[in-house]
Amino acid sequence: MARHDAYREEVIGRANVGDTPELVAYYDELAKYETGALWTVANKIEPWQPKSESVPVVWRYRDLREHVLRSVDLVTPEQAGRRVIYLNNPGRREVSAAVGWLYSGLQVMHPGEVASAHCHSSSALRFIMEGRGAYTIVDGHKMTLGANDFVLTPNGTWHEHGVSEEGTPCIWQDGLDIPLVNALEAGFYAVHPDLNQAVTHPVDDSTAAWGGVALRPHGESWNKPYSPLFKYEWEPTYEALRRYAATTDGSPYDGVLMNYTNPATGGPVMATMGASMQMLRPGEKTRAHRHTGSFLYQVAKGKGYSIINGRRYDWQERDIFCVPSWAFHEHANASSRDDACLFCFNDLPVMHALKLYREEALAENDGHQPLIG
Amino acid sequence: MARHDAYREEVIGRANVGDTPELVAYYDELAKYETGALWTVANKIEPWQPKSESVPVVWRYRDLREHVLRSVDLVTPEQAGRRVIYLNNPGRREVSAAVGWLYSGLQVMHPGEVASAHCHSSSALRFIMEGRGAYTIVDGHKMTLGANDFVLTPNGTWHEHGVSEEGTPCIWQDGLDIPLVNALEAGFYAVHPDLNQAVTHPVDDSTAAWGGVALRPHGESWNKPYSPLFKYEWEPTYEALRRYAATTDGSPYDGVLMNYTNPATGGPVMATMGASMQMLRPGEKTRAHRHTGSFLYQVAKGKGYSIINGRRYDWQERDIFCVPSWAFHEHANASSRDDACLFCFNDLPVMHALKLYREEALAENDGHQPLIG
Amino acid sequence: MARHDAYREEVIGRANVGDTPELVAYYDELAKYETGALWTVANKIEPWQPKSESVPVVWRYRDLREHVLRSVDLVTPEQAGRRVIYLNNPGRREVSAAVGWLYSGLQVMHPGEVASAHCHSSSALRFIMEGRGAYTIVDGHKMTLGANDFVLTPNGTWHEHGVSEEGTPCIWQDGLDIPLVNALEAGFYAVHPDLNQAVTHPVDDSTAAWGGVALRPHGESWNKPYSPLFKYEWEPTYEALRRYAATTDGSPYDGVLMNYTNPATGGPVMATMGASMQMLRPGEKTRAHRHTGSFLYQVAKGKGYSIINGRRYDWQERDIFCVPSWAFHEHANASSRDDACLFCFNDLPVMHALKLYREEALAENDGHQPLIG
Amino acid sequence: MARHDAYREEVIGRANVGDTPELVAYYDELAKYETGALWTVANKIEPWQPKSESVPVVWRYRDLREHVLRSVDLVTPEQAGRRVIYLNNPGRREVSAAVGWLYSGLQVMHPGEVASAHCHSSSALRFIMEGRGAYTIVDGHKMTLGANDFVLTPNGTWHEHGVSEEGTPCIWQDGLDIPLVNALEAGFYAVHPDLNQAVTHPVDDSTAAWGGVALRPHGESWNKPYSPLFKYEWEPTYEALRRYAATTDGSPYDGVLMNYTNPATGGPVMATMGASMQMLRPGEKTRAHRHTGSFLYQVAKGKGYSIINGRRYDWQERDIFCVPSWAFHEHANASSRDDACLFCFNDLPVMHALKLYREEALAENDGHQPLIG
Repeated sequence: MARHDAYREEVIGRANVGDTPELVAYYDELAKYETGALWTVANKIEPWQPKSESVPVVWRYRDLREHVLRSVDLVTPEQAGRRVIYLNNPGRREVSAAVGWLYSGLQVMHPGEVASAHCHSSSALRFIMEGRGAYTIVDGHKMTLGANDFVLTPNGTWHEHGVSEEGTPCIWQDGLDIPLVNALEAGFYAVHPDLNQAVTHPVDDSTAAWGGVALRPHGESWNKPYSPLFKYEWEPTYEALRRYAATTDGSPYDGVLMNYTNPATGGPVMATMGASMQMLRPGEKTRAHRHTGSFLYQVAKGKGYSIINGRRYDWQERDIFCVPSWAFHEHANASSRDDACLFCFNDLPVMHALKLYREEALAENDGHQPLIG
Repeated sequence: MARHDAYREEVIGRANVGDTPELVAYYDELAKYETGALWTVANKIEPWQPKSESVPVVWRYRDLREHVLRSVDLVTPEQAGRRVIYLNNPGRREVSAAVGWLYSGLQVMHPGEVASAHCHSSSALRFIMEGRGAYTIVDGHKMTLGANDFVLTPNGTWHEHGVSEEGTPCIWQDGLDIPLVNALEAGFYAVHPDLNQAVTHPVDDSTAAWGGVALRPHGESWNKPYSPLFKYEWEPTYEALRRYAATTDGSPYDGVLMNYTNPATGGPVMATMGASMQMLRPGEKTRAHRHTGSFLYQVAKGKGYSIINGRRYDWQERDIFCVPSWAFHEHANASSRDDACLFCFNDLPVMHALKLYREEALAENDGHQPLIG
Repeated sequence: MARHDAYREEVIGRANVGDTPELVAYYDELAKYETGALWTVANKIEPWQPKSESVPVVWRYRDLREHVLRSVDLVTPEQAGRRVIYLNNPGRREVSAAVGWLYSGLQVMHPGEVASAHCHSSSALRFIMEGRGAYTIVDGHKMTLGANDFVLTPNGTWHEHGVSEEGTPCIWQDGLDIPLVNALEAGFYAVHPDLNQAVTHPVDDSTAAWGGVALRPHGESWNKPYSPLFKYEWEPTYEALRRYAATTDGSPYDGVLMNYTNPATGGPVMATMGASMQMLRPGEKTRAHRHTGSFLYQVAKGKGYSIINGRRYDWQERDIFCVPSWAFHEHANASSRDDACLFCFNDLPVMHALKLYREEALAENDGHQPLIG
Repeated sequence: MARHDAYREEVIGRANVGDTPELVAYYDELAKYETGALWTVANKIEPWQPKSESVPVVWRYRDLREHVLRSVDLVTPEQAGRRVIYLNNPGRREVSAAVGWLYSGLQVMHPGEVASAHCHSSSALRFIMEGRGAYTIVDGHKMTLGANDFVLTPNGTWHEHGVSEEGTPCIWQDGLDIPLVNALEAGFYAVHPDLNQAVTHPVDDSTAAWGGVALRPHGESWNKPYSPLFKYEWEPTYEALRRYAATTDGSPYDGVLMNYTNPATGGPVMATMGASMQMLRPGEKTRAHRHTGSFLYQVAKGKGYSIINGRRYDWQERDIFCVPSWAFHEHANASSRDDACLFCFNDLPVMHALKLYREEALAENDGHQPLIG
């Protein structure tokens, strides 16, 4: 017989009811009507604080790269839709998530390859890892892409990817909110009727129009719920970090961190996912804090390690790692000479929109977690 | 050996890769690095449209009422925390949800009983079903409650419930976003240090200050992410429906429907849950549509039926039923003389905030679903 | 010869340059190029604090009523456009303003009269003073009007007024931002091509749809920059004030004051003008404060007096009086038995939108102004 | 005897009442009670469309420069407060405005000079014309300034200007909303208690933190009603115009125009004044349109002319000219080889906030105004 009092707590204000034959009979009766007694599950469904189902993971690029490249020999884009190796968090395999409700994968395309255009209610982003000649087309706007460029393919847009004939094999990281959108039972998908879309605007026009410093193109209206700037280039981003680093102490928890924004609103780039680039200065070791929201990092530059829930995870350029919700985490740059840069995407816009963001610094031990085991 | 090609689709633009020994070996290799091949799951995680895990259910009050009342003999509020029989959707038992990510239950309290005060990051609401003398206290504001009154206990507020000594046994429906907040790994809970809070404002002051018609009290500032009006009384709500019904054709899908609002913003009452009251005029039969979002209805007045995904569900006063995401639904008032009123709460604010709302009318058959089986 | 040093101040940081022959010659030279020396006018155009050009005035209804009624014998609505006696502030006659940049007048119509429909970029409001049968039509929505009802005819809407054949002579107060819109050189005016518009919606449908307590009609979208509720009725407004008065201490400066709102946003009723109704409880004497913004009051109920910049102004039902920007003011109800109610409209939305609102309480003398002379 | 029927119009729906002895006696009676008959002024105060009191003017830098420099010999900053030659629109002399409600002047400072710090409720901006070593301090943030840099000193901030000892004589254009704030009777002024403020942040930290491309510094919160970016540098602005020009046709009325924005919101830089930089491509001649709002231009680069209300106004680098509200205007670059750039500030945020913006293209003559006279 299943126990019904597994979650009892000896705390005033919490459910604390032991099973009795009479109660168990009552519970059986309730089940007939698709009901149950709240006190049998209350302490389970109302935890004192979050305990993430995700676990910290580092996906090492030196491990994955060859497998990603090998997929080129195994499947075509036509067969596979997209040739992607996705990241599986051991605690989230059933929803194909890398952390929390965020999906991620490494996609590879060869020169001359073109993927078919599609559209979905999931929001997507890409962060370029290697290769020359990659491009993305979003609603007729074509963006050329280089390493560490960050590009959006928002909810509801027609989009497709390719690599020009003159390019080299390209690998990038995909990030999507597919698990979230599925969980919210709001996922729609469509294949473009022509399989590929026409390029209807000058190449890189989105960057030309919206990529100025605090400038808004007068000729363009915009009221969609995502950024009109689809590509965020690495060079101005890195330059901005360097300039900002020169005048700020930075965050004790994150070093010098800047959030990519929708220039039309100053808010996050899409409604469900935000992204940031942060610099850890030479030798910088941040303090630990924790907050709600799920985070997936890619090392854009340098090497170092993060301590997450008391365990150390080393990383170097192109490695990917995650920080689950409410996990204490702190970062360290392993170099005393060079800066290290971490790209990150997350579900913070969800936390903020639903008023569920909370943050807490580690007070003990000067803000540094003791290592476990 | 597990198959990896279970989700193949013979559609251009979709994954369509059959298992081969070489591929299966490759998949096994990928698994070692906490990765997988997207094309083995792509069609599963990118469905053409939502297929809800929830099923339509009617919880009949004539079935549940005696079991709810019996809980009074079985457990005390002190033992149980709250004496609640919760609603289990057959497809959502593992998260204790009535539909989607929404929790609901029926709570009973006897005259003189007081539940301990607590606070959580879930948002909660109550809809009073029967009894006299019930009250709720939210951050020191005490609200007296009668049948069909709707009351909020938002995310982050201290709240508690009770029934006055002069009252009668009271039953109300609780609605919470607990499953959603848990899924988003953002649930926090605290018991009030004094177990009960002081009433620090005049009784029903929230209604007195914010319950005027399109009036805002000059002396009160408000910038919290939920309504400053905590109680929505039945009489003015029903009167408003009657007045509106006299000048509108209403919605073809919902009859005469009004959404409860935050009077400080005109928006939904809380960041994660909205609520509405709708009137089906005598003999009214609406047309079918479907949309994203999960909905839980309580029959506030009258009787009728709803057709949900092709099956008919009859209901009468105090019954509760649900409509899952993207399920076609239409409503009918069974009386040709009296109106019927449906209270509803839902996660539409989530759908709108995350830009995931979609809606579709049933085009065929004059907008009416053929009954199944 | 004109002096150029009339505004000198002996304060460090202020302009303090005396005229010399050399400087005067220089000023003459500057004038040739449509320029001047800032220091000759700086202290004038950068005052330490506002000194309004408007003066406090009470317009007594017992003085004006007969003159308003007499206009019926003197001009027709066809000749006059509208038969209105407007209020002239002695300091603002050149812009036809009652106070600041706000226009007001008393309009009279006889049963069966209809004014022609027009549209302008000024925003307008009406507050009904006496008579039965008055109505206003706004963009096809007809509102029936009674004493102390408040009605909007916003910027850009087609609107017209009339009194039904069964009615009695009606008088109401008009309030417009005409002087402001003229000053901003943004005034447009059009006469309706058919001279009168059709009533295209059920009578009073705006109130039926949007006049519920914290309820929003599901079938109606709204994104215009003014309230979808065009009429605010006296009874629910007075009732709301009475309920609010029972649970609040009110404002020390204003007693029990509620602002009319746009129910779709919780904000002011129009972009340029706000309005409020306030209750002074029996015997209530408020304290003095001052703030930016211009205010025009009508006594909706009762009698009393206001002290404005040290002078006492008595008022009774239907009297109108103004409080200029940055003038200290306090109000008193002259009755120890009955409440007094003041309707007010103002340009506070302008002050807030342009971030120019400031407020200051009178600190001395227990908050009460000594009377002058 | 003054006439009262000067504004009669023979148009149905407009006031059309001739003076009679009886009416004039009535008007005299009304005047005793600080009232008047609306129909005597209605057509004046409700014009069919705006007729600006401002006239187009070009202030030529070759005319003004020597006079500006000469002020250095005539007054000290201590005497003058600020050494500024202000621009007088012939139609707006009584309010010291250059156009509409906008003030502007040319300020000069010599190396080593420091003006005293002050604060006012007017918003201010500066556009640097010549010299090296100029700086502005805003609330402890010091900005170094070069030619064509644009800098804000918003409403309510402590601010001061100076030129470093190593610099050269510097001239810049000031732009303020002083006339507007005075008209709204909301002007406050204060001299800093220490006469000068301390620099409390790293030099140019505002640009370092907020001057990235679509990036938001994570460590900085911001909820003030103006941009946290106080300085907009010329180089990235010009570069952005060049990039945008490469992918856009531009506006038929304005060429390639970008609005300076508040990067925290995407909106205008301050609540009352907006600013833009526009490029006229070699040989570009725009079409005419007109809109509400007052505009003051400075030629940042190149030469050309504008046709305003049918008259041609030639301009070259550093010249300043104005376009009044609702005046038709079109611009031409006189060079077939080089681009021309126009800096502009305006009161568009006021027009938009108060919902008074209107725009109209010239339909006739292929969009080009015939020249008058």
